[in-house]
Amino acid sequence: MRILKKIFSKSRSLEDGIFFNALEKILGFPPTELESYRKAFTHRSSNKVDKEGNPMNYERLEFLGDAMLSSVIAGYLFSKAPYGDEGYLTKMRSKIVSREHLNELGKDLNLIQFIESKVPVQHFGDNIHGNIFESLIGAIYLDKGYVFCEKFINSRVITPYVDISRLEGKVISYKSLVIEWCQKEKRVFHFDIFEDNAIDGQRLFGVRLSIDDKVIAKARATSKKKAEEKAAQRAYFAFQEKINKK
Amino acid sequence: MRILKKIFSKSRSLEDGIFFNALEKILGFPPTELESYRKAFTHRSSNKVDKEGNPMNYERLEFLGDAMLSSVIAGYLFSKAPYGDEGYLTKMRSKIVSREHLNELGKDLNLIQFIESKVPVQHFGDNIHGNIFESLIGAIYLDKGYVFCEKFINSRVITPYVDISRLEGKVISYKSLVIEWCQKEKRVFHFDIFEDNAIDGQRLFGVRLSIDDKVIAKARATSKKKAEEKAAQRAYFAFQEKINKK
Repeated sequence: MRILKKIFSKSRSLEDGIFFNALEKILGFPPTELESYRKAFTHRSSNKVDKEGNPMNYERLEFLGDAMLSSVIAGYLFSKAPYGDEGYLTKMRSKIVSREHLNELGKDLNLIQFIESKVPVQHFGDNIHGNIFESLIGAIYLDKGYVFCEKFINSRVITPYVDISRLEGKVISYKSLVIEWCQKEKRVFHFDIFEDNAIDGQRLFGVRLSIDDKVIAKARATSKKKAEEKAAQRAYFAFQEKINKK
Repeated sequence: MRILKKIFSKSRSLEDGIFFNALEKILGFPPTELESYRKAFTHRSSNKVDKEGNPMNYERLEFLGDAMLSSVIAGYLFSKAPYGDEGYLTKMRSKIVSREHLNELGKDLNLIQFIESKVPVQHFGDNIHGNIFESLIGAIYLDKGYVFCEKFINSRVITPYVDISRLEGKVISYKSLVIEWCQKEKRVFHFDIFEDNAIDGQRLFGVRLSIDDKVIAKARATSKKKAEEKAAQRAYFAFQEKINKK
């Protein structure tokens, strides 16, 4: 009996260890308590309840994460756009936290790998990705507080995705920005496109953008155009300093 | 000339000192930088601009404060109502941060005393009170960060006003709760009502609620009934522990 217990506690801690490591990579810092994170990835179909009989799934954490995301983005926009009035700030924020954008963020972090559900993953719509992205933020808030939420949102949302000029509609295409810069700087660029299949059989296109024979950025999307744009956006951010100095 | 300068700088610092003291009483902690707080009370009619020519009024801070208030209340409800699902939490929050409630909070703190405006105060509608209550929260965030926002909202919004049972519609009247408790505990209670006039000439009623000849709570409102209810609510919170143990 004691041995059995030991094996179980060992296998449990191994599982926790794997979750901890995967989570740490995504968060950029080690989590303290795993409990909230587990809840953040528990779908209501799992029918779990806590000791008090309250349903245990990601929906409450989604509410919490949505609130934290909104206020972190509000703080960011307030400081980065001192010229923007209340209406402008509200509009910019709603672009950043759009359903579509949140789904993209959740997908890019592959959060669905952690989902605990009785519904097969392929039966979920696109929104599951954004929902668990928000519930993850809620879990970070519970585990580590507001400042860590801010850190996570800065490194995972703002730095890689938020570009005020783009949101204002001033930048139409990152591909054209990158091409323009390469031509000006006499650099040779190349978009290398290949077809790719996702695990669920969905047709995807992959793109590798090279500048001077060095791969600068990679991206995958459901169309060639989208994949190119995504890769160009990533390259743009990688090269941002240089491009802005042009 | 030097003397003039000295007088001006002295009078300026005296003005700042008065503002600082009044603010500290409201905040419950000393502000660090006064600049944001001044902005929080500057109406657009004052036509002020900053060094970069951006309009300087409370509207951007209102956006920021609204976001911080929403997330602090979200955090509070999340922990206080572990049984509530996402829909419940959303509904409860919208009751707490309702326009009417925010106006009441701004009025109770008499924030309008700080307003800088070219429009006479009596020309403003009721919403100005809620607006500058939110902009004050925005200023606290800028000056002291999220944790101080939380402190302020806890002491000024949650502790004195937020009662989940009441919001859920379970408590209909605090007056009846207090009376019930007094009768059970064989205490003598008395609502002492007097007419009162506000600075702007509006008719107001004041109430002093005494229990066993000791004044427990005071309140003012536009009707006798409202004033009694308000005083009873304050007494309820003061006596909450005892009442809950009944």
